Amino acid sequence: MSKPKVLQLPPVRFAQEKWQELADLGVEVITTDVNNRQDFLKELTSDKYNNLIGIARTFESVKITGRFDEELIEKLPSSVKVIAHNVDGPTADTNVFLILSCLRNFQESHDHLIAGEWLTKKCGGTPIGNDPTGKIVGIFGMGGIGRAVRDRLKPFGFKEIIYHNRKKLSPDLENGANYVSFEELLTKSDIISINIPLNPNTKHIINQQAIDKMKKGVIIVNTARGAVIDESILPKNIKSGKIKAFGSDVFENEPKISSDLINLPNVISLPHMGTHTFETMKAMEEFVVENIESYLNSGKVKAIVPEQSSLF
Amino acid sequence: MSKPKVLQLPPVRFAQEKWQELADLGVEVITTDVNNRQDFLKELTSDKYNNLIGIARTFESVKITGRFDEELIEKLPSSVKVIAHNVDGPTADTNVFLILSCLRNFQESHDHLIAGEWLTKKCGGTPIGNDPTGKIVGIFGMGGIGRAVRDRLKPFGFKEIIYHNRKKLSPDLENGANYVSFEELLTKSDIISINIPLNPNTKHIINQQAIDKMKKGVIIVNTARGAVIDESILPKNIKSGKIKAFGSDVFENEPKISSDLINLPNVISLPHMGTHTFETMKAMEEFVVENIESYLNSGKVKAIVPEQSSLF
Repeated sequence: MSKPKVLQLPPVRFAQEKWQELADLGVEVITTDVNNRQDFLKELTSDKYNNLIGIARTFESVKITGRFDEELIEKLPSSVKVIAHNVDGPTADTNVFLILSCLRNFQESHDHLIAGEWLTKKCGGTPIGNDPTGKIVGIFGMGGIGRAVRDRLKPFGFKEIIYHNRKKLSPDLENGANYVSFEELLTKSDIISINIPLNPNTKHIINQQAIDKMKKGVIIVNTARGAVIDESILPKNIKSGKIKAFGSDVFENEPKISSDLINLPNVISLPHMGTHTFETMKAMEEFVVENIESYLNSGKVKAIVPEQSSLF
Repeated sequence: MSKPKVLQLPPVRFAQEKWQELADLGVEVITTDVNNRQDFLKELTSDKYNNLIGIARTFESVKITGRFDEELIEKLPSSVKVIAHNVDGPTADTNVFLILSCLRNFQESHDHLIAGEWLTKKCGGTPIGNDPTGKIVGIFGMGGIGRAVRDRLKPFGFKEIIYHNRKKLSPDLENGANYVSFEELLTKSDIISINIPLNPNTKHIINQQAIDKMKKGVIIVNTARGAVIDESILPKNIKSGKIKAFGSDVFENEPKISSDLINLPNVISLPHMGTHTFETMKAMEEFVVENIESYLNSGKVKAIVPEQSSLF
């Protein structure tokens, strides 16, 4: 019997890397050259898709396949168990926004402008920010989102991008980022981007002990889950200048957040906006509908591929 | 006599393109393989630098050359007339921040969070944003900053990046962006990034007639100069939904800004933060000091290369 196959629909940006991990596990990653729904439906019933177990969709692949509707689901080989959407991009975009805002004090400068302080002070009296030049970014958790963050940061000209996972990635997946221990990530990074899943091993992994190891003036950005940080200790570390700026889309007891934290001028807080986009919500909603349709029409179940468990 | 030469100090990111324009004008662009100040000082007096008229520095090239102090200035060939710093990056970073904020309604979401509205509404009731997927970015003015914006936007996965200058760039300088007329830029772009210089030809070039040609729901970002837009017409076009979001670091009568404009939730305003960074300000300040030192010690004048005049 042939290897199990997964079909990777274009355009391939980050999914390529994600599915490379599957390839390493003995799955054959295949692609298609068809460029319209009619040809795709025809190809679906060919031998090429024997033993196809998964399909990776992107937003744009709908141009090729059309919607995953009843007609299409019925033509899928019965071996297909998983259809996955790539939703790393919107969270990575949020992450990059927070890094830029922290580096440059943009939120604080906007607040000064709104308060009328630009009338009397250069840049409203906003503290001078920093350029990416010479700065080391540490990505804590280099999965799909971490790698999407890395790819977006590359043209900004940071000095180095380092990362920590439980295991070193292959050079292909590292794509220019350098593997370091957790200890080194804490001590070397000027900016720490938190992209790990929340689990019993990672809850409060960023605690006072970890913060003590960081550089004075470190920037921390979190788009993962609030509870990976012991949030209660953040205000004192920000007020002392140990943490220069904190940008976060997630909070430990969200939507409840301590006013001690969010009222600090160098805290950039967002109300869990990571995937709050029309395109992502539409894709997720369609997925639910398609799942029900699929069950009703073919008895087959679809599922989103779970987060990789190797990050931490 | 040999061609006039300019020396391009590493690392080469955007300066490469800028100096390519000079090469097109008959200037020979040269580089150096030395990696320390001592070797650089030695090389400066060699024949290689005969007829050297300009040097392009970057923040990081100080690692090779050390400061442009008295010792170094004295060794420069007398032909050197221009020493240029590359300060496109910090403004391009601001520009990308504003594009992300406009696409995703991040500023509005932060305001909702601070107002306590996350406690009762998903994402604080922030309108759903958009992903780069499927969107066309139009760069109006593809000079050094416009190209730095283009390079930073590439990994985000926009559908297409188009641009308009008075003249089409060479394919090397276009680097994947597609040249369009001013009319096409207005009608095709989902996001318009304004990166033109202000001059009598560009004052109020974004007027009601230009806005009328844009897509409904266009995003406009301006990090150039306020007066390239007729600011007085913005509030009505934003309130009507013609302009979905407006992000700006510059205003026509800054620091005075109309409260009608800045109090709209989908206006992201910054108090001219484009180059408000430690690294850029340090480089600019050093340049002033070095200019005086140079004059005192060698009678030579230094100058920043002016903005290219071919953008519009």
